[in-house]
Amino acid sequence: MHDVIYNNCFFHDQSQIKRRNYVWRMAMKGGNRPDNSYSVELDKIFNPKNIAIVGVSSAGFGFGSGILLSLLAIGYKGKIYAVNKNGGEFFGFKLYKSVQDIPSEIDFAIISVPAELVPASLEACRLKGAAGAEILSAGFRETGTAEGAKLEQEIKDISRKGIRVIGPNCFGIYCPKSGLTLLPGPDLSREEGPVAFLSQSGGMAIDLAHIGKWMGIRFSKVVSFGNGADLRETELLEYLQHDPDTQVICMYIEGVEDGRRFFETLKKVAATKPVIVYKGGLSVSGHRAVESHTASMGGNRIIWESALRQSNAIQVNDMYDMAHTALGFSLIPPGKYSGVAVTGGGGALGVSSCDLAERFGLILPELEMA
Amino acid sequence: MHDVIYNNCFFHDQSQIKRRNYVWRMAMKGGNRPDNSYSVELDKIFNPKNIAIVGVSSAGFGFGSGILLSLLAIGYKGKIYAVNKNGGEFFGFKLYKSVQDIPSEIDFAIISVPAELVPASLEACRLKGAAGAEILSAGFRETGTAEGAKLEQEIKDISRKGIRVIGPNCFGIYCPKSGLTLLPGPDLSREEGPVAFLSQSGGMAIDLAHIGKWMGIRFSKVVSFGNGADLRETELLEYLQHDPDTQVICMYIEGVEDGRRFFETLKKVAATKPVIVYKGGLSVSGHRAVESHTASMGGNRIIWESALRQSNAIQVNDMYDMAHTALGFSLIPPGKYSGVAVTGGGGALGVSSCDLAERFGLILPELEMA
Repeated sequence: MHDVIYNNCFFHDQSQIKRRNYVWRMAMKGGNRPDNSYSVELDKIFNPKNIAIVGVSSAGFGFGSGILLSLLAIGYKGKIYAVNKNGGEFFGFKLYKSVQDIPSEIDFAIISVPAELVPASLEACRLKGAAGAEILSAGFRETGTAEGAKLEQEIKDISRKGIRVIGPNCFGIYCPKSGLTLLPGPDLSREEGPVAFLSQSGGMAIDLAHIGKWMGIRFSKVVSFGNGADLRETELLEYLQHDPDTQVICMYIEGVEDGRRFFETLKKVAATKPVIVYKGGLSVSGHRAVESHTASMGGNRIIWESALRQSNAIQVNDMYDMAHTALGFSLIPPGKYSGVAVTGGGGALGVSSCDLAERFGLILPELEMA
Repeated sequence: MHDVIYNNCFFHDQSQIKRRNYVWRMAMKGGNRPDNSYSVELDKIFNPKNIAIVGVSSAGFGFGSGILLSLLAIGYKGKIYAVNKNGGEFFGFKLYKSVQDIPSEIDFAIISVPAELVPASLEACRLKGAAGAEILSAGFRETGTAEGAKLEQEIKDISRKGIRVIGPNCFGIYCPKSGLTLLPGPDLSREEGPVAFLSQSGGMAIDLAHIGKWMGIRFSKVVSFGNGADLRETELLEYLQHDPDTQVICMYIEGVEDGRRFFETLKKVAATKPVIVYKGGLSVSGHRAVESHTASMGGNRIIWESALRQSNAIQVNDMYDMAHTALGFSLIPPGKYSGVAVTGGGGALGVSSCDLAERFGLILPELEMA
């Protein structure tokens, strides 16, 4: 049945596919990477030579210990420094009592300490030279409390002083090339590929990464950015436009920070690479759920759908739609396609595939006898 | 993601669900089984004490040997007689040179010999007292040849003399209660349950049976009836109406033999049990595919959809829709449902579930603080 669903989900609408192939071909022709400090910073974040993990429980509990074990399991080859205020040891790693105690500069930090300790940890990582940090801890703006909002503002303020932040309230970065992985992703694939995924949700990020593993989607980068106190949809999208390892961009969005800037960026990026968008929270109750999840505004369905269409983005309605669409764009050579043929080993599967293809506007020409 | 898809597929349309629960409750109240010879025959077919398999290759090739091994694997406890015109032995079974040589009466026959030998084998089984036979062999009306049509007519003629036929060009019967299984179904579940599936396609039959196994759907009977020379959608549907083991009926239909009779029966049965229909071949190309698959007429989409709606059947658009809908009806207690609550361990999964529920007309009331 998967071939059928594949057809179903990939070919949303024929006119869209034609437009899409057109812009996609443009993307293949090239576009050089602009050499700016922003992309240099992010390159360092996605390919860190060494990492500090702040908040590693010597008892093996918690996100910090989990991400350390996940990095080892997926085969990250750089140096890892683990920090716990009580010191000690975990899994053969010395636990430094503070970031300051780490005996070298660091490229990237993974922070997993209680929310109220995050700002100080982040500042310490900045002083250690980290280009960026992913903050796995929750307890910020999404709580709806004044204390949470204040702590998130502190993160923003420190970030502006010179460290890029992924999160807080996120699962972090999966990058098969460098061996970075999401929080519960010890078993993700190390095979690289053309698909990037920017997700406001950690759950969606890990789900697509896992679905992709068995479905054959290969990733360049998956970023769960959670509350998005610093880096979020727009900046990351802009980075991916110029990322030579990324050819297809997927996004799960609950709410954007600056609608106008996001749509201008989306229009620009979607003119060079396919951008597949799954927008959550467009229903009344979904909207309520979004508020308590990432504290975003869900938005109005009609405005969102119109704006996505005008941006030439491809809108999908669930995670499997997104997976199949991304797989399609990552496998099928660029070109204009106006028909489709169905072959297979089962009669009814052929019937279903034909029915589905036509429902989505694809023409199946009748084959002629030789 | 499966919970989400489950919501998606089960609740097609709120008014339909309400109607459905109403008739479903009627079904629960009862309806006695009519004691007629037709249902006695079919009871014997679904629960045979002994089976003849005609066409068992001693080399282990072919459908006959496959179904014998499948019956052993699934744990069919009755007596099996294997027939091969050359005699010999297979897997510890003596191969009788003809059906006539079998030293007892038989309840049910599984026929898997070349098409031109099928009529004689069927007649021999009839003379051995078999209530019915499933004919796995292909090479009949679906070939589009005069020879194929003639052979299928011979099957019909013999059947009218007193043996009920499932097939030809089918995968046969799966009945967990008695240990009958489809052709490639040695690993299907022996757990019984309330869902029956009548399928013109063998591939769809085995797919739903397998999907059901991991998804938690339990079956009363699955029948792949292929070309349907004798028993097909209408007769089998009528039988299931009175089958006490069946509470939910699924159907995959490529074409019906007698449209008026089918829809009258469907209306009658759907007034007592939920009937979920997946109609293949409603597109132009799907229609062509149907012709070469089971030699049926695909039919017109608008007429089919209107007639199904008028019959109070539940139309689904693919095999997973069917699986989720059947699972829903087999698990959720009868009643009128006007709202739904979403609980779960992931933020974005909650958002998606809310969005999906609303897309299908379900209301998610806002929870009040205690």
